[in-house]
Amino acid sequence: MKPVCLVIGAGAGIGGTVGARFAREGYHAVLCRRSDEEGLRVLVEGIESEGGSASGYLLDAMQPDVIEDRIAAVEDEIGPIEVVLFNLGAQIGDRPLADTSYKAFEMGWRLATFALYRTAKAVCPRMEERGKGTILVTSATAAVRGNKGQHSHAAAMGGRRMLCQTLNAEFSPKGIHVAHVLVDGAVDAPDTLGKMLGPEGFQKLREARGQEHDGLLLPAKMAETYLHLAQQHRSAWTHEIDLRAYSDRPWWNH
Amino acid sequence: MKPVCLVIGAGAGIGGTVGARFAREGYHAVLCRRSDEEGLRVLVEGIESEGGSASGYLLDAMQPDVIEDRIAAVEDEIGPIEVVLFNLGAQIGDRPLADTSYKAFEMGWRLATFALYRTAKAVCPRMEERGKGTILVTSATAAVRGNKGQHSHAAAMGGRRMLCQTLNAEFSPKGIHVAHVLVDGAVDAPDTLGKMLGPEGFQKLREARGQEHDGLLLPAKMAETYLHLAQQHRSAWTHEIDLRAYSDRPWWNH
Amino acid sequence: MKPVCLVIGAGAGIGGTVGARFAREGYHAVLCRRSDEEGLRVLVEGIESEGGSASGYLLDAMQPDVIEDRIAAVEDEIGPIEVVLFNLGAQIGDRPLADTSYKAFEMGWRLATFALYRTAKAVCPRMEERGKGTILVTSATAAVRGNKGQHSHAAAMGGRRMLCQTLNAEFSPKGIHVAHVLVDGAVDAPDTLGKMLGPEGFQKLREARGQEHDGLLLPAKMAETYLHLAQQHRSAWTHEIDLRAYSDRPWWNH
Amino acid sequence: MKPVCLVIGAGAGIGGTVGARFAREGYHAVLCRRSDEEGLRVLVEGIESEGGSASGYLLDAMQPDVIEDRIAAVEDEIGPIEVVLFNLGAQIGDRPLADTSYKAFEMGWRLATFALYRTAKAVCPRMEERGKGTILVTSATAAVRGNKGQHSHAAAMGGRRMLCQTLNAEFSPKGIHVAHVLVDGAVDAPDTLGKMLGPEGFQKLREARGQEHDGLLLPAKMAETYLHLAQQHRSAWTHEIDLRAYSDRPWWNH
Repeated sequence: MKPVCLVIGAGAGIGGTVGARFAREGYHAVLCRRSDEEGLRVLVEGIESEGGSASGYLLDAMQPDVIEDRIAAVEDEIGPIEVVLFNLGAQIGDRPLADTSYKAFEMGWRLATFALYRTAKAVCPRMEERGKGTILVTSATAAVRGNKGQHSHAAAMGGRRMLCQTLNAEFSPKGIHVAHVLVDGAVDAPDTLGKMLGPEGFQKLREARGQEHDGLLLPAKMAETYLHLAQQHRSAWTHEIDLRAYSDRPWWNH
Repeated sequence: MKPVCLVIGAGAGIGGTVGARFAREGYHAVLCRRSDEEGLRVLVEGIESEGGSASGYLLDAMQPDVIEDRIAAVEDEIGPIEVVLFNLGAQIGDRPLADTSYKAFEMGWRLATFALYRTAKAVCPRMEERGKGTILVTSATAAVRGNKGQHSHAAAMGGRRMLCQTLNAEFSPKGIHVAHVLVDGAVDAPDTLGKMLGPEGFQKLREARGQEHDGLLLPAKMAETYLHLAQQHRSAWTHEIDLRAYSDRPWWNH
Repeated sequence: MKPVCLVIGAGAGIGGTVGARFAREGYHAVLCRRSDEEGLRVLVEGIESEGGSASGYLLDAMQPDVIEDRIAAVEDEIGPIEVVLFNLGAQIGDRPLADTSYKAFEMGWRLATFALYRTAKAVCPRMEERGKGTILVTSATAAVRGNKGQHSHAAAMGGRRMLCQTLNAEFSPKGIHVAHVLVDGAVDAPDTLGKMLGPEGFQKLREARGQEHDGLLLPAKMAETYLHLAQQHRSAWTHEIDLRAYSDRPWWNH
Repeated sequence: MKPVCLVIGAGAGIGGTVGARFAREGYHAVLCRRSDEEGLRVLVEGIESEGGSASGYLLDAMQPDVIEDRIAAVEDEIGPIEVVLFNLGAQIGDRPLADTSYKAFEMGWRLATFALYRTAKAVCPRMEERGKGTILVTSATAAVRGNKGQHSHAAAMGGRRMLCQTLNAEFSPKGIHVAHVLVDGAVDAPDTLGKMLGPEGFQKLREARGQEHDGLLLPAKMAETYLHLAQQHRSAWTHEIDLRAYSDRPWWNH
């Protein structure tokens, strides 16, 4: 039985690509995303066409029980979850406080903070029993600095970062590796950045910095680091790591 | 008409003491707390007996509209809010993940993060119109590191810290001073630490480090720094400051 | 006998102004600077003309023994040093690595890091014996992030910040208050920024952001915060605080 | 011609082990250390006995020109340096300020900060001309917090961390990958920790946490992460990463 890599937030960017990378490494990839059944099917078939194994599920993390139930079902029906990639985002672009609704602020927390806590509640006891497991959390610059207009996103990601630290403090000595991956730059991801910019804008950005100049974070390359984190020996674990394109400015520089 | 200092979270520790300090400085202190009408009366009368002016209200920040309505009523009936001290905490002690309920985790966020956002939503437009205002946010070590058992508290305070940064980024140039006060140590506060430890334990801690040795943070002394922050000239504002007793170890040392 | 406030790095900006503020508070200000005897005389006479008391010395912190000897002489001849303001900078502007000489890199360390260590070596034993004292260290953004071209300055200030933490760890429990003041923005200081920009450029910047708009850090206003730090009760000490103009962007925002 | 991996600070712990790992990956390892010619010979022969290629040199980084000359000689006689591992430490144990001599403080800076700057001065222009290169810098907890007694070490490592950031800011867009590896725990290294604790103490610590429990950082496992960093695609580079044993507490937790 293959070990399972569960991806929560499996779009065509980081989530789907990292899932596929783990599948190539011998994991069964379980891909979960909120919508776009067709896109999900494409990801799963892409993995299978390479000889890998995967399953796909629609999962709306705003709903109660769905994360918990999915984890239970995967463990029962597919196999032990060895790796979780928690990849849900809540970036809604820059909005002044006046234009940030209560609903948007709460949704940020529900998706980016509370859903990780729910995931941990469901998966950590199982990993703890097995004495091992890996939880990889995609994070963003907003976890370490609150920029103008990022009220919802920064509050959610800042809470998420601290939650990763409390999870690590409790579960690292029990053999569960929690890693907070600070993605500090624009990702070449059609499902998120692409939708935010629109097809033309995204194509323009890609041409300006993307393929040739490697100035956008390429998910296929990022996946190597996610995989490396999951393969680190427990005597030398990473809890926090940043990633950005060589030509990009780190968040702390101006 | 006196300027108003609104305290959200006015127990007998930081909140009530800082409120009284501002009252001595000529502000009308509006003290809000969740419960203990008698304790609230004592605080208000204490201020009045010193010749100051104050009002007290019970306010449960878990409830919808109560913050927003209180701010509107204060502005209408008492006067312009020049200073807000946001002092709600959500420390529930150390609990393993298994013992941290969904309800507790959400409550942490509602009190420590969402209530600040609601406060800002209600008060910032008024301050912006007047071109000035101060929002002082009491924070805790959990805002910068996630310790074992602090799942709810750290996630909430980490989100709050980032929210303070996004508020500062938007409103500082508009004349609103947002300051994040990192209280990094035990406070000599009967309503919070006192209740957590019980009367005997609290007395014991006080005797061990408190009065003579100044080893607990004394609210009356902390109040001087809160006041100083509110009095800083806009050419030299502080956004983040830490406070701890001289004999205590900073959070980053072991 | 008046308590002494020793200022190492007393130009016409932060150093001289903070010294004068402490003099108004009843301290004898000892102002030390590398050069410009005339400028030093003006500062001392300015303090005296306000009824304060001050002394001035030229002191080149690159030279051996001069800091140590000055501290010994002040203690012997003037009185116990209660407050040190360590205000030496080593900003040499942005320079690519190729244009940063060994000499410049070493000078940054000698002035901004080693001179603070020498100061602490000389003054801490005396303060420790008296059970009290305050060391205020002016710092810069370069202490927390290394920007392009800041090789010498950032390395020196980063080392200085860690040194402040080790000094605090050892001496805070002994009654010595060490505070690291992160000056995160341009200061309205003719002796440093003024010289860097030249008279016209400085005047232009001043007009653009300075007086009316309070967009440069005004030393006279900063001095209030330095004084407040020295007056904090030992139950509520600050180790790190940032300062910037309301209209300026904090270092972490872009 | 093999690419060169130059190790400055190649003891039997991280330096020698990472050098050997790169040699297995096809690099020619150039191992430099201050003393112990016999130990150096053992490392080189160990690499060669595995079919790898290596050279060893004694190099005292306190001396002028030796780093610069070694880099020039390696480039001339062996080949282009693709990877530098800068691994010099300056940990001298915990010492009160009174017991930290000027000499020790300066030596910390010369080895841990200035030697990195000298290395960068010598190697960056060559890497820049080739449009690629990797500089891996082993760092320590003291780079991010100043503990009691760490005056020399923390000041040196804090400066080193900022220097890594300024190097990154200037050279990352030119294709040079600078990574700051925060080693946050005790390393199973006979040449450093072993010497500090003495043979018995080291054996005891090893037995308590070492082999079976993986509670000390094992250099052979750390080497995988160093190698991964050097192999990251330039669209997804890491500048800062932490490493510690699963059972160890991160520096920010108490």
